[in-house]
Amino acid sequence: MALKILQSTDIIGGTFSISLMAMMGTTVLLFLGTGWVSKRWKLPVALAGVVTLIAALHYYDARTIWLAAGQMPTIYRYIDWLITIPLQIVTLYFFIGATATLTAGLFWRLLIVAIMTILARYMGEVGFVNATLGFLLGLAGWLYILGEVFFGKLDEINAKQNNDAVKQGFFWLRLIVTVGWAIYPLTNFVASFAGGLTEGRLSIVYNLSDFVNQIAFGLIILTVAMRESISAR
Amino acid sequence: MALKILQSTDIIGGTFSISLMAMMGTTVLLFLGTGWVSKRWKLPVALAGVVTLIAALHYYDARTIWLAAGQMPTIYRYIDWLITIPLQIVTLYFFIGATATLTAGLFWRLLIVAIMTILARYMGEVGFVNATLGFLLGLAGWLYILGEVFFGKLDEINAKQNNDAVKQGFFWLRLIVTVGWAIYPLTNFVASFAGGLTEGRLSIVYNLSDFVNQIAFGLIILTVAMRESISAR
Amino acid sequence: MALKILQSTDIIGGTFSISLMAMMGTTVLLFLGTGWVSKRWKLPVALAGVVTLIAALHYYDARTIWLAAGQMPTIYRYIDWLITIPLQIVTLYFFIGATATLTAGLFWRLLIVAIMTILARYMGEVGFVNATLGFLLGLAGWLYILGEVFFGKLDEINAKQNNDAVKQGFFWLRLIVTVGWAIYPLTNFVASFAGGLTEGRLSIVYNLSDFVNQIAFGLIILTVAMRESISAR
Amino acid sequence: MALKILQSTDIIGGTFSISLMAMMGTTVLLFLGTGWVSKRWKLPVALAGVVTLIAALHYYDARTIWLAAGQMPTIYRYIDWLITIPLQIVTLYFFIGATATLTAGLFWRLLIVAIMTILARYMGEVGFVNATLGFLLGLAGWLYILGEVFFGKLDEINAKQNNDAVKQGFFWLRLIVTVGWAIYPLTNFVASFAGGLTEGRLSIVYNLSDFVNQIAFGLIILTVAMRESISAR
Amino acid sequence: MALKILQSTDIIGGTFSISLMAMMGTTVLLFLGTGWVSKRWKLPVALAGVVTLIAALHYYDARTIWLAAGQMPTIYRYIDWLITIPLQIVTLYFFIGATATLTAGLFWRLLIVAIMTILARYMGEVGFVNATLGFLLGLAGWLYILGEVFFGKLDEINAKQNNDAVKQGFFWLRLIVTVGWAIYPLTNFVASFAGGLTEGRLSIVYNLSDFVNQIAFGLIILTVAMRESISAR
Repeated sequence: MALKILQSTDIIGGTFSISLMAMMGTTVLLFLGTGWVSKRWKLPVALAGVVTLIAALHYYDARTIWLAAGQMPTIYRYIDWLITIPLQIVTLYFFIGATATLTAGLFWRLLIVAIMTILARYMGEVGFVNATLGFLLGLAGWLYILGEVFFGKLDEINAKQNNDAVKQGFFWLRLIVTVGWAIYPLTNFVASFAGGLTEGRLSIVYNLSDFVNQIAFGLIILTVAMRESISAR
Repeated sequence: MALKILQSTDIIGGTFSISLMAMMGTTVLLFLGTGWVSKRWKLPVALAGVVTLIAALHYYDARTIWLAAGQMPTIYRYIDWLITIPLQIVTLYFFIGATATLTAGLFWRLLIVAIMTILARYMGEVGFVNATLGFLLGLAGWLYILGEVFFGKLDEINAKQNNDAVKQGFFWLRLIVTVGWAIYPLTNFVASFAGGLTEGRLSIVYNLSDFVNQIAFGLIILTVAMRESISAR
Repeated sequence: MALKILQSTDIIGGTFSISLMAMMGTTVLLFLGTGWVSKRWKLPVALAGVVTLIAALHYYDARTIWLAAGQMPTIYRYIDWLITIPLQIVTLYFFIGATATLTAGLFWRLLIVAIMTILARYMGEVGFVNATLGFLLGLAGWLYILGEVFFGKLDEINAKQNNDAVKQGFFWLRLIVTVGWAIYPLTNFVASFAGGLTEGRLSIVYNLSDFVNQIAFGLIILTVAMRESISAR
Repeated sequence: MALKILQSTDIIGGTFSISLMAMMGTTVLLFLGTGWVSKRWKLPVALAGVVTLIAALHYYDARTIWLAAGQMPTIYRYIDWLITIPLQIVTLYFFIGATATLTAGLFWRLLIVAIMTILARYMGEVGFVNATLGFLLGLAGWLYILGEVFFGKLDEINAKQNNDAVKQGFFWLRLIVTVGWAIYPLTNFVASFAGGLTEGRLSIVYNLSDFVNQIAFGLIILTVAMRESISAR
Repeated sequence: MALKILQSTDIIGGTFSISLMAMMGTTVLLFLGTGWVSKRWKLPVALAGVVTLIAALHYYDARTIWLAAGQMPTIYRYIDWLITIPLQIVTLYFFIGATATLTAGLFWRLLIVAIMTILARYMGEVGFVNATLGFLLGLAGWLYILGEVFFGKLDEINAKQNNDAVKQGFFWLRLIVTVGWAIYPLTNFVASFAGGLTEGRLSIVYNLSDFVNQIAFGLIILTVAMRESISAR
């Protein structure tokens, strides 16, 4: 296919490139970071790096398609989220698990609900199930996760321990899961009921959201892990 | 060739992308993981990573071909399996071997039977040998492996040692080899005798099966290795 | 697209290749270097490597486009700078932070001002805001950073410590931020008010500037980190 | 060029893919393995990994060409062998050298003879020198190497040391150099004097030979190195 | 562009492939090697690896262009040399610097002269300056470097220390800089004054020269570093 060159005012196209580069940079930093943190922090940092790695692979595809065709079908986003959102929930679990003991049951509940949430949103949005049903199931899944994070075991265990770095990190990660992730049911709602946004606008919204939700998420975990690894010595 | 863009409802095409990304993510995680586990666990974890690496290379080819031509000839699957299935059997051998002493004879029996199994299935399915013969030989090979795993040396040695993490891991790996791998003779049977599935349906079945059989397989080994490496200190 | 072969006198095209190769080489050296320096120096060295990694990705795109179309729209430069310039400021912060304690407030001020600076320049240059406004805001941001570096906390803390290697490094890094980075508002001014340079000339100016501003920047940090890591033992 | 899709019965094409994947998997395993073995074993294991890396690069080219054109000109094989065969001889030297002291003279004799051997075969086969001369010189080179391995210094030193793992490994490596490598003068003879094989048949023979001669070679070295590294502690 | 397949007698095309593969193999070996040598040897070994990495990138481009167009314009060589030749001089500096103390002034003199040397040759050869002037300046630069290496500080310091491995290594490196590098002013002279060689012949000469000058150079440094790292313990 012919080479598509960005116009100097093409902000949408530009955000695809920025996202791709930033995801790759963050991935390398997080993977290098697994070598700097103490044993128990390696897994959450590595998982955060796998999240941005998969996002980078997604943005590589997404950028190619956007430049070639000016399109960004919803399915590409869901391919990414179906892996990264559950993986981030799992990362959160191991983040708390690094300094406390959690049950395996909680792990499986969080993982399965996260997968179900993304599947429900996708199926509602493309019309495989009733749009209202898809939206509500997706919303319910997200609210369940918020419940675990704010009132459930994760919060309880976090509140009990006296470890400031972890507590502060948990505060910010929780904020991302609450405020940052609110963009997904919101756009899911708009896509299913309000006629949707143009693909260009939607792309900017998603590209910027992923920037915060995946990159900032990873960097917070690395920061906590590095502070903890120094103080632990 | 022209760029093929996935339609938003194209689940088959989507599972190729998801498999590719998940394989790559798992591969990196397992290779990083070899640095976190104690000496004797490095080999099984690395081998599990080589399995998903080869699966990732397979899915890279497979996705390209599916997107370009909507085809997925059986041979591509067998190219993958001819390496990954014997490699997984070998990984299982070294998994038990990490905490016990196994004979070299068992290693060679398992390896050779696994290779024979895949070759028999392939040759029956594409008509190089009689379809019934191919199917039965393939079935026999798999049953022999199940025999070793359930009643043979592997089980015996596993049962003797009092190491809960390894025992639990062996339970799950055995489940994958039994239930998860049942999909291969099943589809082999359907392909050879019952007219086969459409390539699209078969692709979804295989993509999802590989997800469990190769990714979950690797993660179980990493989990056991990490638990053992902590408790060993 | 057809393969474009450089003419033997095509210096502009050549500088794209040289920049790409040099960025890749520096990136690998810096990432390897994170393994040689003591714990507290790993982060600044790694961040300097992420800067050149992103620059390498930029030059890969830039070279492709230049060879195919003889164009280098401004937006590609800003995609790079929007990540690398703030990242370098952050790297400078962690460089001083490796041997002294800095406030989180300073971190955020520097990061946000750096991002604003690049955005203002870009928006003025492509006409999203009034060109004079964009230029002045961009200039103000840069001057603020220079203020922090010459008269603010960074300078104060650097002056107080008696660590020759760090002081010398800071001197050179400051020189890059002052003299080397002066090229950006300068060309921003020329682009906005003086009719601009031809794309070819501008490309050479930028390619050579990036060479000093990103590669030399990283090598200075590695040098200081290595000297400190030896003397610390 | 158009995408070529393998037919389900295309075994020749399939062996190119299998070889490529297996070479890549082995390469990663061997490079990871350099981190598990004790200091003196790192070099032979790494060299064995460089052999399979170069073979992987070869198979990447070879597969592309075979799929696009159904051809596999001899020169591609010789490009690979000209590096890998001498490198394997050198690896054998450092394998014995890991536990004994060898002279530099032996190193240079083995290296130069190995290079001469490949060059002679190539030049005879494509007609740069008289075919008989090329074949005989190539044969002589190989016999010289066999002489060193069976009756020369390498064997002598190996026989003297009482190290079972190394001795066993040497036995198998010697078998590969003798029986496995016999395929090369054999096909060289057939190509030069007996009209040659079809390119397809020759490809299968070479692909399978390389599988044993390069992959098994590397895995034997890793196995010995790992056994020695454990027993040395 | 169409796939170009090498004819079996196309030695020129073959040397591009061999050079590419050998550069990649050497690069990986040297980078792995940085993990085996003691602290002070890591930098020279890594720099030698960056040299072959950049050469590998060069040969990747060069091979593509040669296969597609049968051309190899001089500028591609100079893009490589402008980075690798100064980098090798710097590597030599750090090679001696690993066991002795050198002044920063010498570093800068060597670096700047090396860059000037390559620029002068290039400018003379393509006609940007008078061919005689370019040739003489290039020659002068090389002679200055030889002077430093044979009669200057580098030789003086090397002669004083009683470290056989380093002395022997320096002997060989000096030979490369003298005899191996003589090819560059020689071909520069031929290109500027004697009508030049055909591009094909020139390519073989350069491909083989780079093989010795870059690969052997790196392997000598690794060898010395490994011997020193063992004896140092």
